[in-house]
Amino acid sequence: MRIAYQGEPGAYSEAAALRFDSRAELLPLQAFEDVFHAVQSGTSTHGILPIENTIAGSIHRNYDLMLEYRLPIVAEVKQPVVHNLIVFEGTTLDQVRRVYSHPKGLEQCERFLRTLSDVEIVATYDTAGSAKMIKEQGLTETAAIASARAAEIFGLRVLRTGVQDYVDNFTRFLIVCRDPKPLGTPDKTTIVFTVPNDAGALFKALSVFALRDIDLTKLESRPIPDRPFEYLFYADLAADRDDVRCTRALAHLAEFAPSLSTLGSYPTWKEPSADVSDP
Amino acid sequence: MRIAYQGEPGAYSEAAALRFDSRAELLPLQAFEDVFHAVQSGTSTHGILPIENTIAGSIHRNYDLMLEYRLPIVAEVKQPVVHNLIVFEGTTLDQVRRVYSHPKGLEQCERFLRTLSDVEIVATYDTAGSAKMIKEQGLTETAAIASARAAEIFGLRVLRTGVQDYVDNFTRFLIVCRDPKPLGTPDKTTIVFTVPNDAGALFKALSVFALRDIDLTKLESRPIPDRPFEYLFYADLAADRDDVRCTRALAHLAEFAPSLSTLGSYPTWKEPSADVSDP
Repeated sequence: MRIAYQGEPGAYSEAAALRFDSRAELLPLQAFEDVFHAVQSGTSTHGILPIENTIAGSIHRNYDLMLEYRLPIVAEVKQPVVHNLIVFEGTTLDQVRRVYSHPKGLEQCERFLRTLSDVEIVATYDTAGSAKMIKEQGLTETAAIASARAAEIFGLRVLRTGVQDYVDNFTRFLIVCRDPKPLGTPDKTTIVFTVPNDAGALFKALSVFALRDIDLTKLESRPIPDRPFEYLFYADLAADRDDVRCTRALAHLAEFAPSLSTLGSYPTWKEPSADVSDP
Repeated sequence: MRIAYQGEPGAYSEAAALRFDSRAELLPLQAFEDVFHAVQSGTSTHGILPIENTIAGSIHRNYDLMLEYRLPIVAEVKQPVVHNLIVFEGTTLDQVRRVYSHPKGLEQCERFLRTLSDVEIVATYDTAGSAKMIKEQGLTETAAIASARAAEIFGLRVLRTGVQDYVDNFTRFLIVCRDPKPLGTPDKTTIVFTVPNDAGALFKALSVFALRDIDLTKLESRPIPDRPFEYLFYADLAADRDDVRCTRALAHLAEFAPSLSTLGSYPTWKEPSADVSDP
């Protein structure tokens, strides 16, 4: 199993990939699209992509790429996001004059960053890449906002942990593969569909699931640019696509939805059991 | 009318406030929460807050603050987002060594920024504030990503326009006020509610609207941290709250929704008519 991800070693996507399979071989790439391309071309067997965050919401760009590349989702991973202020060994908080991180990392730590006076905030393409820069260039007046793993990988020190504005910050990642066979027993199906802008059109769409006792674990509308009279919906169904109720519900929805795509069926992420001791 | 907004003069929130009422007095503040506080304390009569963007999605923080402050929504404004690369008069693209903007502005222009070589990307608290810094400090090797209005206000030059990754980028803003009287004839109602995690619970919730022919123009689920078995929904209904169908539908929903809040009834934003010439 070779998993492509966006970012540097130490990125949250890498942590999520290792959380899924600690023995997987990993392939760091620069952009989300590079991850889809690597899977499509066979450079990697799997790709991992962030799809939604409790604070920032859905990552529309990756939904767009899923529709474009049509690589099936075969698994999901939930990864807690804990941001840390990371420095070169020996640097104290008073000495920090610049903070590096990805724009999303900076935004999620805005309250903490406002408490620092006389400090310049520098945006980079990657949280872990910021830590790497500090190490490689031996920057002693600079800190990075990144994961604890990034500090570990680059031999840097965590000066403050949990510096994000919200404690309950986690990101859901999806794993894609050319082979649609789910990694485990599927009990969840992700679909994208449109409905006409008629009163009750969405209700009619949801009725195909409700009338068959299929629960929705996510539902989100998104305006379609240039098509103001149609809505795009993202939905997660609590059922395997091959479950006969689900197959029938999707066929029923396709009867009247202008468009409907099934992005994959996969097992719901289960937290590794806490009571299993790690020898 | 005195409208508080987050940011500096030249910010997109200021542009949205002026789009709503070009004669309004404006009050720039540092944080979203400051805007709610200004309205609550009477420092300003109204406040304007971004609530969703076509690319970045919903701004959960402002939904949270709406629930916390309970200031009714009285109007909405849709504002196109056009990012520009702004410089000190005389600076050419070749001379630019640093780019300043808010993390969201930087993220929305990532593709363009990647085409610039040997340039440092610096995050600031504000798009317009970045332009202000260039002017005040006379920075000739620095550019800002901000609105054209920011360039105009600070007497700077637009070097490139439309540098955002996606053309169809607009932000929806909501106007809040202590007085719940809508600014115009209300035909839209924003609600926030929770449903139990039962199969069909959402369907049941939507049935109260569908059975009364009330359309939904937005619907989004959000996981509730620490309450994994309940879902929070944001919905916009295409009806005035005082419309008897809507009143009955909301009473019906309250019968079984664990929580339900009406954030306000207000008129749907109408684009200023293009064929009315401005003398």
